[in-house]
Amino acid sequence: MWFAAVPAGADWWLVDSAGFRPACTDQKGMNMSGSDSGRCDAYLGRNAANYVPLSPLSFLDRTASVYPEFTAVIHGSRRYSWAQIYDRCRCLASALFRRGIGYGDTVSIIASNVPELLEAHFGVPMVGAVLHAINVRLDPASIAFMLEHSGAKLLIADTEYSDVIAAAAGRMQTAPEIIDIHDQNGSGGRRLGSQDYESLLQEGDNQFAWRLPADEWDAISLNYTSGTTGNPKGVVYHHRGAYLNALSNALGWNMGLHPVYLWTLPMFHCNGWCFPWTVTAMAGTHVCMRKVEAQAIVDSIREHRVTHFCGAPIILNMLLNAADDIKVGFAPPVKAATGGAAPPEAVIEGMEKLGVELTHLYGLTETYGPATICSWHADWDMLPLSERARLMARQGVRAFLQDGLTVVKPGTLKPVPADAQTIGEVLIRGNTVMKGYLRNPDATGEAFNGGWFHSGDLAVRHPDGYIQVKDRAKDIIISGGENISTIEIENVLYRHPQVMEAAVVARPDDYWGETPCAFVHLKASGAALNTQDVIHYCRERLAGFKVPKTVVFGPLPKTSTGKIQKYLLRERAKGLEDDE
Amino acid sequence: MWFAAVPAGADWWLVDSAGFRPACTDQKGMNMSGSDSGRCDAYLGRNAANYVPLSPLSFLDRTASVYPEFTAVIHGSRRYSWAQIYDRCRCLASALFRRGIGYGDTVSIIASNVPELLEAHFGVPMVGAVLHAINVRLDPASIAFMLEHSGAKLLIADTEYSDVIAAAAGRMQTAPEIIDIHDQNGSGGRRLGSQDYESLLQEGDNQFAWRLPADEWDAISLNYTSGTTGNPKGVVYHHRGAYLNALSNALGWNMGLHPVYLWTLPMFHCNGWCFPWTVTAMAGTHVCMRKVEAQAIVDSIREHRVTHFCGAPIILNMLLNAADDIKVGFAPPVKAATGGAAPPEAVIEGMEKLGVELTHLYGLTETYGPATICSWHADWDMLPLSERARLMARQGVRAFLQDGLTVVKPGTLKPVPADAQTIGEVLIRGNTVMKGYLRNPDATGEAFNGGWFHSGDLAVRHPDGYIQVKDRAKDIIISGGENISTIEIENVLYRHPQVMEAAVVARPDDYWGETPCAFVHLKASGAALNTQDVIHYCRERLAGFKVPKTVVFGPLPKTSTGKIQKYLLRERAKGLEDDE
Repeated sequence: MWFAAVPAGADWWLVDSAGFRPACTDQKGMNMSGSDSGRCDAYLGRNAANYVPLSPLSFLDRTASVYPEFTAVIHGSRRYSWAQIYDRCRCLASALFRRGIGYGDTVSIIASNVPELLEAHFGVPMVGAVLHAINVRLDPASIAFMLEHSGAKLLIADTEYSDVIAAAAGRMQTAPEIIDIHDQNGSGGRRLGSQDYESLLQEGDNQFAWRLPADEWDAISLNYTSGTTGNPKGVVYHHRGAYLNALSNALGWNMGLHPVYLWTLPMFHCNGWCFPWTVTAMAGTHVCMRKVEAQAIVDSIREHRVTHFCGAPIILNMLLNAADDIKVGFAPPVKAATGGAAPPEAVIEGMEKLGVELTHLYGLTETYGPATICSWHADWDMLPLSERARLMARQGVRAFLQDGLTVVKPGTLKPVPADAQTIGEVLIRGNTVMKGYLRNPDATGEAFNGGWFHSGDLAVRHPDGYIQVKDRAKDIIISGGENISTIEIENVLYRHPQVMEAAVVARPDDYWGETPCAFVHLKASGAALNTQDVIHYCRERLAGFKVPKTVVFGPLPKTSTGKIQKYLLRERAKGLEDDE
Repeated sequence: MWFAAVPAGADWWLVDSAGFRPACTDQKGMNMSGSDSGRCDAYLGRNAANYVPLSPLSFLDRTASVYPEFTAVIHGSRRYSWAQIYDRCRCLASALFRRGIGYGDTVSIIASNVPELLEAHFGVPMVGAVLHAINVRLDPASIAFMLEHSGAKLLIADTEYSDVIAAAAGRMQTAPEIIDIHDQNGSGGRRLGSQDYESLLQEGDNQFAWRLPADEWDAISLNYTSGTTGNPKGVVYHHRGAYLNALSNALGWNMGLHPVYLWTLPMFHCNGWCFPWTVTAMAGTHVCMRKVEAQAIVDSIREHRVTHFCGAPIILNMLLNAADDIKVGFAPPVKAATGGAAPPEAVIEGMEKLGVELTHLYGLTETYGPATICSWHADWDMLPLSERARLMARQGVRAFLQDGLTVVKPGTLKPVPADAQTIGEVLIRGNTVMKGYLRNPDATGEAFNGGWFHSGDLAVRHPDGYIQVKDRAKDIIISGGENISTIEIENVLYRHPQVMEAAVVARPDDYWGETPCAFVHLKASGAALNTQDVIHYCRERLAGFKVPKTVVFGPLPKTSTGKIQKYLLRERAKGLEDDE
């Protein structure tokens, strides 16, 4: 109705009865007199007094000025105040600048969760450059590809990964200059560069007059997706999105000022879901962590009074499976945000006993990390465990400052009914969706088709509007016209005490079209299982048409980052003989 | 250094080695293919999937969808859930739209803190119109001026103010159509319009397809400053600033999700410092309040478990001076933010006893309300009362999402030393500074001179960077070349038990240039004071040159909004005979 009445022409928004003219949006945003188009009142436009580009760099500036003596970073025996971290970031920016690194240049870094990686989240964009943090578990070929594709001008590299870095550099025609991070808390490794990080900082000026980006749309970072096939895609983030997602994290998680944040989530993973910027905005303390192990997590939480941490379910499992003597309950409870897979009942129960309050998030590299949050309602606390687990298994609602979330019939923009049954594709829209894929207009155009970001994940909508992810689009099985979620079957298999890992894929079938085929890796210690045992176990817990028709035992193929390669399993399922 | 190396030309920011091109900023922001300038990669520009204008309207949409059954508004016996408030706001927008009200139109409203005024903060901008909330204490001439100057298309008016509104309308050539708010909890009054608010809502469609502004720079509201002389100026806010200041309030005050917010601060005052949008974003409960009185405040806090309220010092004094039987301490404590004058020791002490935790803010109409916050450090809690009062008396640091705050030598952009002594003008810069003054380019240009907003307030910078306001620029007294803060002298006078009100102005003096002249209104009940008593009292508490040379007793002249008219006192001081 509103839409219908607005004239379609470009100028409807100039109609103005009281002087509220549209913005004289000057691209530089910095001069109030230079942009008067003659049709709008320039004096109500942007100027240096009333417009400042949104950038998470502002958070560091404010926190360092208001709380200069507060503890910013703890790493082993190293401690930095906010004044010191700000100085170090300015020294880094200044040193980069003196080397000629500036607007639009890429600075790559490969490191564990050490202070240097945190500092790079500020020092690199302070000169207008783009931070490219590399997954430390990647193989040399992937790293070489990313360094070349991103046009990295410099590589800051933790000596712990010197072997793989040297191998990657060896594959490149022209490898970037390397600056070594030589961390006392590290496990050694070789120096590959001519200089280390601390001496680089010493080249810089701690009063360096960095500035905000000219445009909040400027790139701040680059994160490669770890696709299971093909070359990784370079996801570009901008200052505006990083700023908003950083605040969204704090607001949606009800984080509060001065959190003590433990770095169990890799900072190279979607820029640590933007938490390097969040924790800085909230004037918290970053507790770094090189080796993520149960003992170290528990010790850090106790020693530094950690209030928050994030991580994939493996972090929670690590705590759950830790020896009893290190598992003494935390008081006050610690808040943990988890994503990647829904926390199952056993994990929720175990975390409750341990004093860890879980929040379930969902997102993708393309959404700066969290795009949805399973916002908890206080009255759900009273429900029995199984019911709480059912509610928490849902990926939830749009994140605090995310603008749009829907689940649509694939190939359309029509939302599926909120019936908890009908599966559709998850679409996301908002300021915390990427700029696009670097040097890949085709993939970018496809991802943004119809004015929404297409996640490639399939989900249902519950009657209360919360969404629940059922499968990746390419993984879903269609059997006799019914959608079958491979995640649902895998969740059942994982609950079997003898199953270590499981993956389910579609197997072509003349009659049904496809049927579920389960690949199962058993625990070494347990009793042997056969196909009938697995099918019987599933039949008791799943609708008949979802029960795997085929079961294959053995280890599962994985990428260097630990993702199960379902496309290889699909090929194997396709090639199975009829009687298998 | 960084600045020096950037070429001055317009195109330096196009230099790009890795494909991170500048934004193809399409003004409509809505079409990814239409804005390729041929120089930048349009596919990394804005599109409907990754760019959404910032607007506080998004907060209502999210809160109503995630927490539809939570209590949104309490007003006497009226209760609305978030689903209901969202419906009512859409009905209001739809009804306005059907009357032809749209982009750039002004909708005025004059009302106490009732649900209708809150709803107008959403329903009016949902059609692209601009909300103009009027101070209920204004005189008919001022109201008529504002309705004419703003070009109001409609006036929504609380019947409690029907006399003054009828008088204002009578002064206008063409008065706008009036919609009456007829509130059961009100004190009556006449209906002036042909229709009341509830019947207006019934004209509307609760599924109205409102939309976000085309540009986040579009005006959302208009607030007239209540100058002590001359015509009021119309301060224009935009969606971007309202969004950011709303979040800044929540983050800086550490508000958390689901606050229960008591409306002691008028919503017509700088849009209630943006708290209509803050509390909605945080999915809290708005507790409305028609008559702001001690008993009602205390009752509301108890009955609704209020967590937060805001107000001028008069609200705190009201609580402090309330009868002992209603002053039973609040547990858990309630958080109160106050601005306009520093809370003195007695108020801080009284509030602590009552269970009210104070936060001191400072701002102006031009800064959407709060521009600074006296961010409290936990270790200050251990200090003695006098020391805490000294720290809390400071206006503090830039608000959470405010970008710049400085104190400069008047007439320059050079910061004064952080010595707690040197007085300069407070300048503010950032996204929560107004667009400008409506139809007043001259005043706008003057306010933004040099790329900063000039507050007209004089302050010092403390060594820790916190600022403290000493006076309005036009009020400061210069005596023998020394600046004398009239606020400092007034604070001393207010502490005298027999003083009800006091104001200090400059009196011309042949030898000193100016000397302080105190106007003092004594309490009716107390003993009489003479000039020597007052001078003696001040001499014991102030440096000699700050002690008033002249004291005049009697009531003080005020504006209709209760502001003391210092310009009249200055005239009187000027006209005093030599021996007075």
